[in-house]
Amino acid sequence: MTGDLLIRSVRPWPNSLDVPTVDVLCSNGLVASIGTALAAPPGVPVVDGGNGVLLPSFTDAHAHLDSTRLGLPFRPHTAGPSLHELIENDRRNWRTAEQTVAQRATHTLGRTIAAGTTQVRSHAQVDVDSGLEKLEGVLAAREAHADRASVEVVAFPQCGILREKGTADLLEAALRAGADLVGGLDPAGYDRDPVRHLDVVFGLAEKHQRGVDIHLHDAGSLGAFQVELICERVAALDMRGKVTISHAFALSTVDADRQRELIELLAEHDVAVTTVAPGTRDPLPLRELRWAGVRLGLGQDGMRDYWSPYGNADMLDRTWQLAYRNGFRQDALIEMCVDIATRGGASVIGHPHGLTEGSPANLLVVPGDTVTAAVMDRAPRTLVVHKGRAVAAHGNLTP
Amino acid sequence: MTGDLLIRSVRPWPNSLDVPTVDVLCSNGLVASIGTALAAPPGVPVVDGGNGVLLPSFTDAHAHLDSTRLGLPFRPHTAGPSLHELIENDRRNWRTAEQTVAQRATHTLGRTIAAGTTQVRSHAQVDVDSGLEKLEGVLAAREAHADRASVEVVAFPQCGILREKGTADLLEAALRAGADLVGGLDPAGYDRDPVRHLDVVFGLAEKHQRGVDIHLHDAGSLGAFQVELICERVAALDMRGKVTISHAFALSTVDADRQRELIELLAEHDVAVTTVAPGTRDPLPLRELRWAGVRLGLGQDGMRDYWSPYGNADMLDRTWQLAYRNGFRQDALIEMCVDIATRGGASVIGHPHGLTEGSPANLLVVPGDTVTAAVMDRAPRTLVVHKGRAVAAHGNLTP
Ligand SMILES: [Zn+2]
Ligand SMILES: [Zn+2]
Repeated sequence: MTGDLLIRSVRPWPNSLDVPTVDVLCSNGLVASIGTALAAPPGVPVVDGGNGVLLPSFTDAHAHLDSTRLGLPFRPHTAGPSLHELIENDRRNWRTAEQTVAQRATHTLGRTIAAGTTQVRSHAQVDVDSGLEKLEGVLAAREAHADRASVEVVAFPQCGILREKGTADLLEAALRAGADLVGGLDPAGYDRDPVRHLDVVFGLAEKHQRGVDIHLHDAGSLGAFQVELICERVAALDMRGKVTISHAFALSTVDADRQRELIELLAEHDVAVTTVAPGTRDPLPLRELRWAGVRLGLGQDGMRDYWSPYGNADMLDRTWQLAYRNGFRQDALIEMCVDIATRGGASVIGHPHGLTEGSPANLLVVPGDTVTAAVMDRAPRTLVVHKGRAVAAHGNLTP
Repeated sequence: MTGDLLIRSVRPWPNSLDVPTVDVLCSNGLVASIGTALAAPPGVPVVDGGNGVLLPSFTDAHAHLDSTRLGLPFRPHTAGPSLHELIENDRRNWRTAEQTVAQRATHTLGRTIAAGTTQVRSHAQVDVDSGLEKLEGVLAAREAHADRASVEVVAFPQCGILREKGTADLLEAALRAGADLVGGLDPAGYDRDPVRHLDVVFGLAEKHQRGVDIHLHDAGSLGAFQVELICERVAALDMRGKVTISHAFALSTVDADRQRELIELLAEHDVAVTTVAPGTRDPLPLRELRWAGVRLGLGQDGMRDYWSPYGNADMLDRTWQLAYRNGFRQDALIEMCVDIATRGGASVIGHPHGLTEGSPANLLVVPGDTVTAAVMDRAPRTLVVHKGRAVAAHGNLTP
């Protein structure tokens, strides 16, 4: 039966070198039991975990599958540093990629899964240049991997909403065409009118009863002001638990008192936060966010595209980046990063999972003495399971 | 003859996807010629570069081979965050490692070479607890890999010089026992007396005619003051070209005018700088240092030891970190990081090498469409050559 699987010989997190090896039985897509020397029910496939570390599978809570060039010939970076130059560079070049958006997104989603991620929230650019083409490519990738991963898609106004006439209508068309959430982008800093921008975003969300995920790079007091504007709308529209702020650089660029206020505001309105562990911006206050109960996820952002050469579809590598950028050395803190990258992201997208009996069997086995060692080693994944089905092994998708 | 080798089918940096593949003939340890379809002289071994990118081999300009636990069972981190707590933690634990210092350093140096590094400057801790034991372990590792890499060793007072009686005598004994350079550590911030600390370091350097490499984490004006003290001693003792400051956080924690002054001071006294691309400190002003002519190298620092779980003996991974932490997207800037990690470090340790005919044949072949792609992919190394000898292939040392 679909969703039945016996995984032999793994060490579930929390673990250590001297923890006994166990087996995990998945039934009907759920974790049915965890124990020693479990018997395989008749007809249930058996896979070997090789004594690896068992984790919940990763959730990539912030991806851009539509722009990726992973797997294609490497292309030197041709954009200037400003957001506007990056947008123009993408616009000049994306149509001449060697493969369609659907092909590229499908390839990169496959690599993402093979590296241990089975939940993805991908933004898909919607603008007057590309219309719904990029969205359709991401929807095709989701369809191609429908048995291997759960993917939700954000209609993302990468070029602003107010700068180019027709974008708001395209966002609405995107929701009708299959996008799950409404996106936004720097309502003040890029689109120049935070209230009108947010009125479009939340207006569409209310009309179509969808969630919201807003890119907010704006830092300091301008970013903090927009966090407030977003929370005001969450309260007015009763959208607690349905809104995410991505990047949220405001949180790490205000003073400690203001930071505490913002975190309390996010917690009160149950607004989630995602980070991509950027290399040059100050890290978010991870512990403070979690202590306050704010749902917090990790994402890949773009993956080798017209925007940046970084990103390799590997959430374990990204988890390493999160730990490294925070200077974490203690195992408990590095494991917190793993928690953000797995259960944290799952809570952001509303598909909680874990290692307890009864949880959806979305699992990952990775070589390593301990969870922290696995993060440091970043070895190819032994096994990836989605809804009780082995979807990848030894770094490759299963057929 | 030793040092003769024909490497077939590589694309030398600078390169691109459409650059023609060439062969490289090494004779007597030097690059003899680079060209298409070179004939193999009789008896010269031939290896296949697999159409990979040809680079000068890496120089790890700042390693701690004596403390590594790579390859041993993972050990949870047990130290508090302060330097003093880290020192005490190491002191409590290093003697009970599952292997000797020599075994551990030899293993990690082997992995370092297999990942493409053939020049290493390693610090070796010298203190009243360990005496010369750690130094002797690093010297044994150097001996074990003498045909595969050039290693120089710094007698490093990890616990300060003035805090524990007898350390200065031990440093001198270390120089007599085979250490190449005299080390130092935060003369003010840790050892509490910058002038006396530096007088010991430079006194030993002058007496034994050795170079100096000083760890300087002290930041801001206190760090800047010590950069001046160091340069004053370089001038007084005529030690231009023989002194390195490691970390040099002062450079990224003073204002722009002061930073410019310090860079000019370093250039004027030909004092080199090394960085380890730390995850949480502001990056050094790489471009400004290079424009001023300051020799600049990259290092691994500790590798999975009692100090930190990070570090994997892979200088290509560390090069990626340097690019990521600087937010570099342009290929030219990412290639600058490769230059720092290869030729830059070689200039720090005084063994310049390169890809031109007549250079020492210390070479690396790595899969990748371009140099930048190779940094992003971080694939196992195709081939590592030291003095015209193939010392590693496909990620493993050759016997
Ligand atoms: Zn994004
Ligand atoms: Zn060091």
